This record gives sequence, structure tokens and C-alpha cells, in this order.
Amino acid sequence: MKLLKDKVMAEGIVLGNQVLKVDSFLNHQMDPVLMKEVGAEFARRFGGEGITKVLTIESSGIAPAIMTALELGVPMIFARKHQSLTLKDNIYVEKVYSFTKRETNEITVSKKFLRADDRVLIVDDFLANGEAAFGLARVVEKAGAAVAGIGIVIEKSFQPGARLLTEAGYRVESLVRIASLEDGAVAFVEDAPNHSCD
Amino acid sequence: MKLLKDKVMAEGIVLGNQVLKVDSFLNHQMDPVLMKEVGAEFARRFGGEGITKVLTIESSGIAPAIMTALELGVPMIFARKHQSLTLKDNIYVEKVYSFTKRETNEITVSKKFLRADDRVLIVDDFLANGEAAFGLARVVEKAGAAVAGIGIVIEKSFQPGARLLTEAGYRVESLVRIASLEDGAVAFVEDAPNHSCD
Repeated sequence: MKLLKDKVMAEGIVLGNQVLKVDSFLNHQMDPVLMKEVGAEFARRFGGEGITKVLTIESSGIAPAIMTALELGVPMIFARKHQSLTLKDNIYVEKVYSFTKRETNEITVSKKFLRADDRVLIVDDFLANGEAAFGLARVVEKAGAAVAGIGIVIEKSFQPGARLLTEAGYRVESLVRIASLEDGAVAFVEDAPNHSCD
Repeated sequence: MKLLKDKVMAEGIVLGNQVLKVDSFLNHQMDPVLMKEVGAEFARRFGGEGITKVLTIESSGIAPAIMTALELGVPMIFARKHQSLTLKDNIYVEKVYSFTKRETNEITVSKKFLRADDRVLIVDDFLANGEAAFGLARVVEKAGAAVAGIGIVIEKSFQPGARLLTEAGYRVESLVRIASLEDGAVAFVEDAPNHSCD
């Protein structure tokens, strides 16, 4: 997705070899026009999948997910990372480890919002090790519903999440795929040297 | 806002005399069409205020805020409740007490996203005691910027937040105002008995 790639190039800040900081348009300050375009693109890619719900996890997933849900004409659900006082019964709970924050969160989704006949599109801002996406997928499957796809805004393809999710049988669509953050530079998957065709 | 009032009547669940659970369309599952309408309504009400940024706080504020920002054509910023590893320097920090969760959070906003010439619209899902809104306003004012208004999706008018914010000089616009949750029923401010006109 060119608009997103341009934004990553213009505003993304590489920290070490692992972290891409995109807090000017995705993780803290958000660009609403870009979020709308992201939603339209996910809706285009997953439009044929019969999606009935979009599921994400607080907080940075919410904006792309609500735009996707608007385009698809379905409700959006965001999983919570901590239980609230008003939401303690009848929930699905999954443990999700965050490598970035080095902590394990319990993510929760109220049982009443997922039904066995739902076809769920999981949307998240980043895909690295796949912990959050797998956790959300387990929630969907506990409900007896189907994971119709996983839409990711920025995939760090040098980490194993995309491969693991694909091997597990999920359809993963990432709008931008990053091959490397080495030497302080963003290299996209498309820019990486191809395998030899000799 | 009639659409929102209808939704509160149809799906809101009253817990005790203080808590209105709206997790089917605002706090957990979200209705994207309603969020779009909420954004359009805030943009209509605050369109003449020269807004340059929309500021909210994670997580339930994000969807109405991104829709408002899209309508106004400005960036949105969401304050974080916990500091992340990639966002630790150059931040404004304010303590905010949550009566619902009975805990004090530190809310943080990166300094680089607020400038002295910004006119900021604060958006949040609920207004009760006003703690979050005041915390966000303090952040804006620390940056030397102006709070151009405060847009609230659901105001619990029987709690003091709206009055305190108005007395402090802020323009508060709430799309739905709840006079009481007593006896398990939602009473809107417009439905409350008027003062005698005798």
C-alpha cells in the first residue's frame, strides 16, 4: 500500500534493529485519512470472505479496525488487555505475551459478542511474533466462530509471526511488509534481493 | 442526538445507580456507523472553533475521536495510560484518578504532537467526575495550546464533571445527557421535570 509505505519512509523512526516507531501516524498521533484508506484496503482484500465482525485489541488496533468495520458494514469488537469492573462475567480470556513490553496480558472478549456462525476478521497495527494475533484467533475459535482472515497494518517480516500464522492456516494480509530495520534503515520486503533465478 | 439516545435506550444496561454499561456499541463492541455519526456531530458543533487537533485517551475514546478528526480534517492523538518502552522521553504526564476502576493512572502525551498554536478538541466516551477531561486539558495547557472544546459521547449529568468543566471555562458538548440511572432506568436530562415556570 503505497500511501502507507510513503508514510513509513517519511515519518518512521528506527530504534535498534527491532523497533519501528510510527507514533506520528499510527501508535499515538493518528492520521485519520490514512486510517480510512487502511480500512478501505482491508475491506477490498477481505470483501469476499463474508466477514460478520472485525476483532482487534486495544489500543492502536482500534482506529484501523473501526474504519475497516465501517467499510464492511459490520460491528467491531476490541479485546481488552485488563478486565474492567463492569465486564467480569462471561468472558473469553487468553494470555498474550508482549515482547515489546516484556509482560503477559490477559486479553478478554465478552462471550455475547461472538457467535458460532461469525466469520471474524482480525485487525491489528503491528505483526511481529504473532502473539496478539494468535491470542485473538484462540478467542474466536473458543466461540466456535471462524477466523476469516488477519489484516495487519505493518508486518515485521523478519520476525516469525506472519510465517507462523500462515503455517497455522490463516490468511494474513499485511499492508506493508518490512524485511529489515538493520543499520537504522527501513527495507521493505519488495525491496529485498530476490532469490536467484539462475 | 437521537440515534445515540435510541441506542442507549435499546442496549444500555443500568448497573446500580451509577454505571451505564454500553459495551454493545461503545466500550467493547462498537457500532462503526454510530461512531461515524458521532464524529460528524462533533465536527458540526465544533466546526467553527478552528480545531487543529483532536485529543482523546485510550481506549474507548479512540473510535469517536478518529471519526471526529476525519470529519474535521486534522490529526488525532490518543493519550496513553501507561508508558511504553518506545515512548519514554519528552512527554507530558498527568495523574488521572478513575472512580470506575478505583486507580490512578499516569496519562502521557508526547510533547512533539502539541504546539503552542494548537486549538485542541478533547473527545471522550464518558463524562462522570471529569477527571480524564481535566487531565487532558492540563496536558494541552502545559503545551501552551488552547482547549477549544470538550466533546463527550455520554454525559452522566448527575455526577459533577460537566458542571466543574463548565465552571472552569471550558465549552462542553455532550451528545447524550443522563439525568439519572435510579431504579434501573435511564432518564435523560431532557426528560427530567423542568423547573417550575410559575
